[in-house]
Amino acid sequence: MSDIAMIEAAAARLTGRARRTPLLSSPFLDEIAGRRVLVKAECLQHTGSFKFRGGWSAVSALPPEARARGVIAYSSGNHAQGVALAAREHGAPAVIVMPSDAPAVKIGNTRALGAEVVLYDRATEDRDAIGDRLAAERGLTLIRPFDEPLVIAGQGTTGLEIAEQAAEAGVDEAHVLVCCGGGGLASGIALALESRAPGLRVRTVEPEGFDDVARSLAAGAIRRNNRTSGNLCDAILTPQPGDITFPILRRLCGPGLAVTENEALRAMALAFAHLKVVLEPGGAVSLAAALFQPDRIADPAVIAVATGGNVDAPVFRDALRRFAP
Amino acid sequence: MSDIAMIEAAAARLTGRARRTPLLSSPFLDEIAGRRVLVKAECLQHTGSFKFRGGWSAVSALPPEARARGVIAYSSGNHAQGVALAAREHGAPAVIVMPSDAPAVKIGNTRALGAEVVLYDRATEDRDAIGDRLAAERGLTLIRPFDEPLVIAGQGTTGLEIAEQAAEAGVDEAHVLVCCGGGGLASGIALALESRAPGLRVRTVEPEGFDDVARSLAAGAIRRNNRTSGNLCDAILTPQPGDITFPILRRLCGPGLAVTENEALRAMALAFAHLKVVLEPGGAVSLAAALFQPDRIADPAVIAVATGGNVDAPVFRDALRRFAP
Repeated sequence: MSDIAMIEAAAARLTGRARRTPLLSSPFLDEIAGRRVLVKAECLQHTGSFKFRGGWSAVSALPPEARARGVIAYSSGNHAQGVALAAREHGAPAVIVMPSDAPAVKIGNTRALGAEVVLYDRATEDRDAIGDRLAAERGLTLIRPFDEPLVIAGQGTTGLEIAEQAAEAGVDEAHVLVCCGGGGLASGIALALESRAPGLRVRTVEPEGFDDVARSLAAGAIRRNNRTSGNLCDAILTPQPGDITFPILRRLCGPGLAVTENEALRAMALAFAHLKVVLEPGGAVSLAAALFQPDRIADPAVIAVATGGNVDAPVFRDALRRFAP
Repeated sequence: MSDIAMIEAAAARLTGRARRTPLLSSPFLDEIAGRRVLVKAECLQHTGSFKFRGGWSAVSALPPEARARGVIAYSSGNHAQGVALAAREHGAPAVIVMPSDAPAVKIGNTRALGAEVVLYDRATEDRDAIGDRLAAERGLTLIRPFDEPLVIAGQGTTGLEIAEQAAEAGVDEAHVLVCCGGGGLASGIALALESRAPGLRVRTVEPEGFDDVARSLAAGAIRRNNRTSGNLCDAILTPQPGDITFPILRRLCGPGLAVTENEALRAMALAFAHLKVVLEPGGAVSLAAALFQPDRIADPAVIAVATGGNVDAPVFRDALRRFAP
């Protein structure tokens, strides 16, 4: 259902649309980690996160009449912006269902990209139910954030680029750390690497206390988080891995990793100082694991996928105040 | 003396060494500027600024015996780091003469890259004299920060990339705004574009009160700044354009632009919010001119070269506190 052929087809649709983001590095980060660290900077993707890839992949694959009716998505913000921009560039209406406690910058940007934003309470309302109802009422096509083969295929194009860029950098054995919510990006990258760079192995990274994927991988069956709020890593606080993504993760990924909120903030400050990129907390957990959990990584090189940079300025300032070198 | 053939030769030496930095954009910045804005993100270059290109170009062109004796450079920090890393990767010793009021992050990073740092007082001491004396004493080769053909050629490789990337983006008429100190980058880019993309025209951008290049271009002869300190744009506070760079700038560039310190800080905050890159004040003046001086630009598109991101965290935090959207 999700395979390398779908990823290649998504890559063809994304050519000239998605940015080929750079693989960054710094001798200072190598020294901290005790090994070579390469950072796939998806914060530099259109809309500030990898989610544009999946959004474009899904919208571009719709039949014209469905596209004209419009799309709907539910998201804490990055999938929202990715779908909103992809829809706008296709001339399609977009409705985005967002939690009311999402970062203001994400809500504002989603509206500014032309989408209609519908807010809901993360603690008391079910975003899936809201999305299904609006989709039915208006004939919109629901674009799920991760458990959707076209979205997984779009995110998987990141893996095609990693395979090429790692080869250019002379790296053929490495752990590829991927910030993980529902597993759309991690499963897409894992499928791409299985085919193109089998020496590169995906490891998921989550916030401590929200490590449903790591626990699911350890148990061999889907486990849920007790809560999905109360952490700065808002982009990756999902209830559980997806029914489509989990079997892929289980087949292809090593044990899951988890980092503290402070480790994520410290990684943001180091990315500021040494890579000159802006990461959001949820987009920095992979770099945090690369830098601060070296004993959990086996290979001489590590590739961290820095998934997004949509962070409110006060959170970023606080990370710098506390942790900038 | 400096020409496209030298730039092409430098590009050949830099292949696989310098990063091909991305040309970034955001619909939010386009809206502010009222035209399409493309940002060449040289803050993502190795060592956090374009200066690595010129440093590598010069060190790689040295005869082996001169390289073994070592190199010396004087710099407020970005040229320092570029030369230090280029020397280290060639196994050559490096001595860097830096002003004592340079940002701490630049001094620290230069030392951490293996260079010997010699500090001097910017107000009372002559860095050229210090550099010449140390070079003579130790047999070091002096690598001037801008008035040196090999350095200009290295910086000019940025222009080769801009020509290619603008064509890929469908842009063949644009002003190319370049943050300008002594004019090494601006003259190198101007030479590259003259040959490869004649519809792209360089405009220099400086801090108000330190606009020696703009005044020199207007007068048709070299003019000096009254002072070279007292502005956050430390990277581009040079006394006057170079004897080699100025004739190139005069022949190829449009009128010079200048922006206020607050405009530079505001551009840093917008680059944080919409591009997810870290700019230093002196590396943000070109983006500031693109965004806040639209009436001084004629073409439907503008390309801003964001030259560096080596900024101390307190300065960056202050820019966000005051100007983040």
